[in-house]
Formats: sequence, C-alpha cells, structure tokens
Amino acid sequence: MKRIEPRNGVAFKLARDDVLSVIDPEGGQVADLIAASANDPREIISNGRTFDYEETIALTAGSTLWSNRSNPMLLIEEDTVGRHDFLLTPCSSATFRHFYPDKPPHRGCFGNLAEALEPYGIHPDAIPVAFNIFMNVPVGPAGNLRVDPPTSNGGDYIRVRAKMDLIIGLTACSAYASNGGSFKPIDFQIEKGGRDA
Amino acid sequence: MKRIEPRNGVAFKLARDDVLSVIDPEGGQVADLIAASANDPREIISNGRTFDYEETIALTAGSTLWSNRSNPMLLIEEDTVGRHDFLLTPCSSATFRHFYPDKPPHRGCFGNLAEALEPYGIHPDAIPVAFNIFMNVPVGPAGNLRVDPPTSNGGDYIRVRAKMDLIIGLTACSAYASNGGSFKPIDFQIEKGGRDA
Repeated sequence: MKRIEPRNGVAFKLARDDVLSVIDPEGGQVADLIAASANDPREIISNGRTFDYEETIALTAGSTLWSNRSNPMLLIEEDTVGRHDFLLTPCSSATFRHFYPDKPPHRGCFGNLAEALEPYGIHPDAIPVAFNIFMNVPVGPAGNLRVDPPTSNGGDYIRVRAKMDLIIGLTACSAYASNGGSFKPIDFQIEKGGRDA
Repeated sequence: MKRIEPRNGVAFKLARDDVLSVIDPEGGQVADLIAASANDPREIISNGRTFDYEETIALTAGSTLWSNRSNPMLLIEEDTVGRHDFLLTPCSSATFRHFYPDKPPHRGCFGNLAEALEPYGIHPDAIPVAFNIFMNVPVGPAGNLRVDPPTSNGGDYIRVRAKMDLIIGLTACSAYASNGGSFKPIDFQIEKGGRDA
C-alpha cells in the first residue's frame, strides 16, 4: 500500500492485466486519474470516447474507460462507492482563482499531474479531463452541475484492471469543494496481473 | 455563405471578434466544431473546462466555450435551437464499426476534422471532444445517454464570437444517429469583427 499525501500527485507504470486499487482511507476525498498508453502517450484517456461506448456518464463496476484512439484502457472491476465524475477538469491555479478568489491559489491536481506526467513525455496541454474517482457531481434536470462532497466512507475503494500497458497519473485532490473543504490523503496498491505475476 | 457538403469538413481561421454563424439549411443536421488557438494550437477547446466554468452541460446563448488553458475561446451570442452536445466525441471509423456494424464504415467527422486540421499543426490524437452543434443527447436520470435526432428546423442557426484568434474545424456530420439517418449539408458564414472590419 502506498500513500499520496494531501494535495499531491504521483505517476507510475501499470502493466496490462495489473490491477490498481484506489482507496479513500478517511472518506470524503477525491483522486483524479489520468491514463496514457506506455507505448505512445499521445494515446490518452478520453471522457468523450468513454461516454460514447458506455452510453452513460455514470461509470462503475463493469464499465470500461476508453482512449482517444477507441481502445479499452481500464476496466472497473470493483467499486464500493458507485459515484465518480468524468465531466470536470482537474483543479488548477486558474480554477482556484475563479472559484476561490479569497483563498491562496494552489497548482491543484492539474499542476500535480503535469509535474508527475512530464517525465513520461506528456505535455500539460495534453492532459484531458481526468477520471475523478469518488467525485460527486450531480447533473440537474436542466443540465446544471453541482460539486457535492463525495459519498465515500473511510476504506471505500475502486479496483481497475489495465487493458494495455499504461502510464497512470493519480492525485489526492486539492480543491475545497470536491472533498468537503478538507485535504486528505489517497492510498493505492498494485496487484501484478497475468503476464507479470 | 459557404456550404459544407454532406459527410465533409473544413478548417479556417477566425480572427478575434469575428462572428461565425453555423446554419442548418435543411433541419435535423449536426455540425461538429473544434477551436484551437491560432498562436499555439496546443491550446484547444475543452468540454471539461467549459463545464467547470459554465457550471452546466446545457450550453446556449450567453455561454462561453473555454480552452484547456482556461481561456475563453468562443461566446455564443445567438442560438435559435438551444440544444447541443459537448459530451460525445466526433464519429470515426472506429465508432462506425462499433455502432453500425452492418453499414459501410466511414472516416466520419473525426476523419474529416483530422484531415482539415492537420495543415494547421493539429495531430489527430490532439482532437478533443468537439462542440457538437445541434446534436441532441439527452442525459437520463441515471446518467444514461441517448442520441436523438436534432430538434433544429431548416434555417436554424447559432452565432459564436471569437474571443481570441482561432483555427476552426467544422463538419457536416456523417453519423446515422446524430442526424436521423440522413446526410445533409451545413452552411456557415463569417462576419468580420472589430479589429478586422
């Protein structure tokens, strides 16, 4: 088990068939996840392709997360929460200035992902909408969006299996609204899959 | 007035303050729109940043379309339809194989945009979710998505004003579901704005 400290982020390789567990140790925290192909990181996770093929914005156990080249990247195998967001971009210094003008700006999940993913050849402009694990964004009947505190409790988790060799970026979220005003860690763990077990 | 023939696409420059009108001449047709900065096309339209700042997925007159660098790109000034999509990616040969396995595959809006935008330095992998003008994608209460025929009638239009110097990609949609099974043209027109008038 590894820990991402509050308002931080990491990047690592995840081989095909490996299983990544992302755990909310205290409850009420969000983790932004980016996946890119280890062979060519221009192939990257896409909310639009995922919405296309899954025919829903509500992704949970059984859903696949797809790449911009229409390939499966991650399969959600277990999910004790069932509430995630794939609509909103990672918080950034610009979003902090916009939404929290009275609070000190922070580079946010976007800055953390940009730093962690740069050694893997991913330019900040290429960072798309992340799969925002445990993030709770209800869509109202008129299409309006709200950011509510996550419904996750301490120990809740999601398990995703890699469908190709991947580079993963993962954060413990830095925004106030996403995690109910508190900053908390995120834990994760990798189980080696078929090929590399 | 210019015409995009059925299942085709174009790209062109749009200077800051210019106004682009996109017209559905026959009704029931979709136009996928991509915008990128003319100064650095790595700055490109972002559904996630737009949903962040507009706090809705229902974009219409008064809404701004934002870039991945959190800058305003286009302001919707008029909209006679009020129903567009910013969730789904442009149709492509892969989506044709997935959704219409019994029909001849087509390179789709994605292929048309890729060809039209390549001379401007935009790699196909960098093409994000397009702003799908007149596309009708209701989101069900459980998050499920449906692609319904557009509600646009012949002559309906949207007018967007450029907030920076832009490269625009624009298509007449190639998919069956988006336009009720028919393939129709899209018309567009540019009015020069302040600086260049």
